[in-house]
Amino acid sequence: MNPQLLLSRIRVVLCRPSHPGNIGAAARAMKTMGLSSLYLVEPKQFPDPEADVRATGAVDVLQASKITSSLKEALAGTIFAVALSARQRDLGPEIGAPRETVARLLREAEQGEVALVFGNETMGLSNEEILHCQAAVTIPTNPDFSSLNLGSAVQVLCYESRMAAFAGQPPIRVLGVTPFASPPATLDEVEGLYGHLEKVMTDTGFYNPEQPGRLMPKLRRLFGRVRLEKDEINILRGVLASTQVKTGYGRKD
Amino acid sequence: MNPQLLLSRIRVVLCRPSHPGNIGAAARAMKTMGLSSLYLVEPKQFPDPEADVRATGAVDVLQASKITSSLKEALAGTIFAVALSARQRDLGPEIGAPRETVARLLREAEQGEVALVFGNETMGLSNEEILHCQAAVTIPTNPDFSSLNLGSAVQVLCYESRMAAFAGQPPIRVLGVTPFASPPATLDEVEGLYGHLEKVMTDTGFYNPEQPGRLMPKLRRLFGRVRLEKDEINILRGVLASTQVKTGYGRKD
Repeated sequence: MNPQLLLSRIRVVLCRPSHPGNIGAAARAMKTMGLSSLYLVEPKQFPDPEADVRATGAVDVLQASKITSSLKEALAGTIFAVALSARQRDLGPEIGAPRETVARLLREAEQGEVALVFGNETMGLSNEEILHCQAAVTIPTNPDFSSLNLGSAVQVLCYESRMAAFAGQPPIRVLGVTPFASPPATLDEVEGLYGHLEKVMTDTGFYNPEQPGRLMPKLRRLFGRVRLEKDEINILRGVLASTQVKTGYGRKD
Repeated sequence: MNPQLLLSRIRVVLCRPSHPGNIGAAARAMKTMGLSSLYLVEPKQFPDPEADVRATGAVDVLQASKITSSLKEALAGTIFAVALSARQRDLGPEIGAPRETVARLLREAEQGEVALVFGNETMGLSNEEILHCQAAVTIPTNPDFSSLNLGSAVQVLCYESRMAAFAGQPPIRVLGVTPFASPPATLDEVEGLYGHLEKVMTDTGFYNPEQPGRLMPKLRRLFGRVRLEKDEINILRGVLASTQVKTGYGRKD
């Protein structure tokens, strides 16, 4: 299925959010990752200018958001819901890792609407709310400071959703091609550089061909790792030649 | 290596952040994922109460943060730096996906300090700043709305770092087996090489600082790809110095 369509089937549900700024941040996080369906269950303060400010260019997501009075209502029409939860709850669904759980979310999204459910900033989700969900997920955190911001938690799970939706497709359009890359140097051009280097180093006394040691092998190892391009050979040989021309201790060869 | 130790070796560097709230959000994002080393390059407004508010329990990260006047200074002592960049830059390092790039970051962290480098909220990183980094990463976003919040970008890459650090499989060593390998050079040692090269090229007339063109960026691109080792810096600077000593057109510096 088309990745964009899959992402459009994921609802983000925020239960009883306290801070309008977090609602705005969640909207922005969603839109950057290609999600757009936001549900707010009993938001303490919404709409609010602070939400608009934090949403920046994602105010459209806020404007299209739906406000409900219960999680049950926000989940109407969905076929699968994942609760974000920091700990295993009595009778609650087993807690999984983000990558695996999101992979399942997207498999389910092939069949219909699904949801990512987030609790209140301080209290998280109630046990009753968790029981409305079929799976639970924890974002691994530092055990000494697990206080992930609500907007950040939305960002991480939306990011994982996008990564999963586009898995197998090149997500980045410009991979590989540096605009200024020149064609790769041929091995004989690289040999020409080594010969030039050796000549200059011999002339300056830095290298003694009678006692070669490991100097040339080390330089070969260095430039062998870099996959030199034609332009780069020209630059390096230009530098070498300039030290020769300037001083006359050797000739450009 | 211990995952916590690996994470402690990652510096988060924010270049010219405009909004103190984002600095606070970044600190909180870092701490939730077990990172603690924050560098601020010319922050517009810091310290600031808004930073403390958004950091909540991560004010300690803010208090321990280091303020520098350049990216170069913030990277001193690191051996590898990844730039966050939305697009491929002229001569900049190739852009990779988050998971692969962070995996490499953690492999490098086995050898020494590393950095994740973030640009200004509006402008991103300058081309010159990107050239101080050996790799670049893009967080895949909705092409119609790619405006990821700075704190969110920090959150996503710190989250990927934690996921990778705790992945349980020992990072693959790519280059570790060469008998000649010496410890990686720090980025300030690499800067020393660039300075030395520039001096020699200027003295020979190969390079005109008044009309710099693309010569230095191209050399940075070349050596940025190779991950120089300490021994290699010594050899290259030895070669440069030998051309100076021999002929007296410059002095070893």
